[in-house]
Amino acid sequence: MAQEFSRRGFLKRTGESALAAGIAAVPLAPPDKQPEHLPIPAPPQKKLGWAVVGLGELALGQIMPAFALCDRSRPVALVSGHPEKAKKVAEHYQINPKNIYGYENYDSLKDNSEIDVVYVVLPNSMHAEYTVRALRAGKHVLCEKPMAVNPQECRQMIDAAKEADRKLMIAYRLHYEPYNQAVIEMSRKQAYGPIRLVSADNVQVTKAPNIRLSHSLGGGPLGDVGVYCINACRYITGEDPVSVTGMQFRPTDDPNFAEVPDRYAFTLQFPSGVLATCTAGFSAAASRSYRVFCRDGWYGLDPAYDYQGLRLHIGQGNERREIKLGQVNHFAREMDHMSQCVAENKQPWTPGEEGLRDTLVMSAIVRASVGGGTVKLSEVQNDWPILPAPQI
Amino acid sequence: MAQEFSRRGFLKRTGESALAAGIAAVPLAPPDKQPEHLPIPAPPQKKLGWAVVGLGELALGQIMPAFALCDRSRPVALVSGHPEKAKKVAEHYQINPKNIYGYENYDSLKDNSEIDVVYVVLPNSMHAEYTVRALRAGKHVLCEKPMAVNPQECRQMIDAAKEADRKLMIAYRLHYEPYNQAVIEMSRKQAYGPIRLVSADNVQVTKAPNIRLSHSLGGGPLGDVGVYCINACRYITGEDPVSVTGMQFRPTDDPNFAEVPDRYAFTLQFPSGVLATCTAGFSAAASRSYRVFCRDGWYGLDPAYDYQGLRLHIGQGNERREIKLGQVNHFAREMDHMSQCVAENKQPWTPGEEGLRDTLVMSAIVRASVGGGTVKLSEVQNDWPILPAPQI
Repeated sequence: MAQEFSRRGFLKRTGESALAAGIAAVPLAPPDKQPEHLPIPAPPQKKLGWAVVGLGELALGQIMPAFALCDRSRPVALVSGHPEKAKKVAEHYQINPKNIYGYENYDSLKDNSEIDVVYVVLPNSMHAEYTVRALRAGKHVLCEKPMAVNPQECRQMIDAAKEADRKLMIAYRLHYEPYNQAVIEMSRKQAYGPIRLVSADNVQVTKAPNIRLSHSLGGGPLGDVGVYCINACRYITGEDPVSVTGMQFRPTDDPNFAEVPDRYAFTLQFPSGVLATCTAGFSAAASRSYRVFCRDGWYGLDPAYDYQGLRLHIGQGNERREIKLGQVNHFAREMDHMSQCVAENKQPWTPGEEGLRDTLVMSAIVRASVGGGTVKLSEVQNDWPILPAPQI
Repeated sequence: MAQEFSRRGFLKRTGESALAAGIAAVPLAPPDKQPEHLPIPAPPQKKLGWAVVGLGELALGQIMPAFALCDRSRPVALVSGHPEKAKKVAEHYQINPKNIYGYENYDSLKDNSEIDVVYVVLPNSMHAEYTVRALRAGKHVLCEKPMAVNPQECRQMIDAAKEADRKLMIAYRLHYEPYNQAVIEMSRKQAYGPIRLVSADNVQVTKAPNIRLSHSLGGGPLGDVGVYCINACRYITGEDPVSVTGMQFRPTDDPNFAEVPDRYAFTLQFPSGVLATCTAGFSAAASRSYRVFCRDGWYGLDPAYDYQGLRLHIGQGNERREIKLGQVNHFAREMDHMSQCVAENKQPWTPGEEGLRDTLVMSAIVRASVGGGTVKLSEVQNDWPILPAPQI
């Protein structure tokens, strides 16, 4: 088995520890008995070669520019259905034009030894196929979230990675940036006592034409923005929910939502007793935050999920204060983590199993919102697809 | 039928209009065609005489001191099971000692013409009985929330008020203070477009001994703090929910929660499609807020339910700003509103029916959290009591 990374070790190495950055002022558990050492300088590293698959808004607006900030990752290939567009992007990023692929010759990636990692940035419904094919081509894969449109696909992807002995990581970028890491650290240390409740919201306006509004492409607010809330509740509690409730709504008079609901509200119950409430929406102006209610205080991010500008607040009684941490490029961080895992043969923090778990939760929420009952995660079977459901 | 007050008229009269206080800067619907007039000075008023029933923390800490800020209400009688305590309070507030009552001679309030209004500040389980008896004694009643422990009791209270031709108001103080009024006004005017989702949280630490932890006294986090979230969702949307989901948890190792759950998470679906998520808890440090997600922006109060220090924020894109309004004493406002309604024979803004509606919603949430299904409000019958439920 591949060795797992230590998050705590990562926080030390990057010097982005929430505690080091000021949260040490809050009442915390006593420090570990082992003294903290300064980061050990990493040896000079070769940059791994990456192929980016799908040149949509996210790839062009965030991922391609982020390579400039990477220490261990560089773009060497592009896969696109639009050769002219790909050619321009390749020129801009000094990618060899021979390394531009279409979907018809995608499997020939296997013959290109420059490519170590494939980053799948396609519509959700295509994640599984293009991940599995890249793995079978002998490449490691970073796949965007939501991992796939149902748990079977997730399992196929995980199985394909095992068969090919390649790494599979899901692009949960918030696991790799200091603000959400600080929340994880505070939660694990119970810095404000045990967690009782979590409230998480992620809403934005999404208008057609947009792949996120397409049923057949696997779009919809639960998978595209609700997944942030679900994943946050899981990394905050460190648990998987045991049961969920769900509600969904689809306006019948808005052509943007001909195929998918515009909003979800759902609750999660965790084994420790933590209860969480979440909203996910495509028809309300952007608001993306969560708050963690603990015995002795609360903390939360607002915004919590944005590419930048995250803010951490802590409240105790009438007092509230803001903790400022360094802002980093989330995409550069997650890509370098993947490159490091590949180079050092370690398991990524957010492997395929992480995506599968969220997908199981989403399956249960859809089932609950359609069927009208509390759904236990143990009831969710492989064969339950995440599909837009009829309006209740 | 008694004439209903106009909230808008009230906002004008008090000069506390959210729009007048700065929200006019935000994009709003065009003003009414009728020009706004300056407040018309009210005629000199006689102060009505109030009897306060139950001298617990709320009565002594908030209600009795608030009379000093009232224009139309003054304390003239006390009802308590502790004569010595009542005597001291009476001295402090210059109340005639002959107007100290116990529960054994409560019905003789009818013979005291100094008393116009009875304010019931007893444990929840006693609200119905002491409200009905006061009404039958010919007194108008302001009753603390939650109105009662089940819908039957609420209906009995409403019926008793009708039979006695007396006013019955439930003490939803937030309807009478500028911050929540501003939110109501913004919501009705759709200042940021239609509402899509609402998220509301109300948690605090409550430790024994406390009547709120007693099953037999009608305590529990849903009725005592969750009611704020439910009522807020209702006054924000201006609608009653059609269905709910609910989850509850009771820690088995915490003696504070031997009788009632320590936390709830629930969702509400409204006829317009608005979905709401709410938390209510007795085992987490204080956090009391809500946020309203609209098509063109969000607004919310944080804190939302405190006696003072409420704060209103509005967000659009990356910009967020705070709107400052005057802080008032919520209890003085609500008591004067009741006195005004009595003097002018008008229906209070928050009559018994308002309490009944919240109680029906709470009944449905309890049923959902016990039975594990989405519960339609139409399914909730009179005979469903709000009881602490077995742990799921």
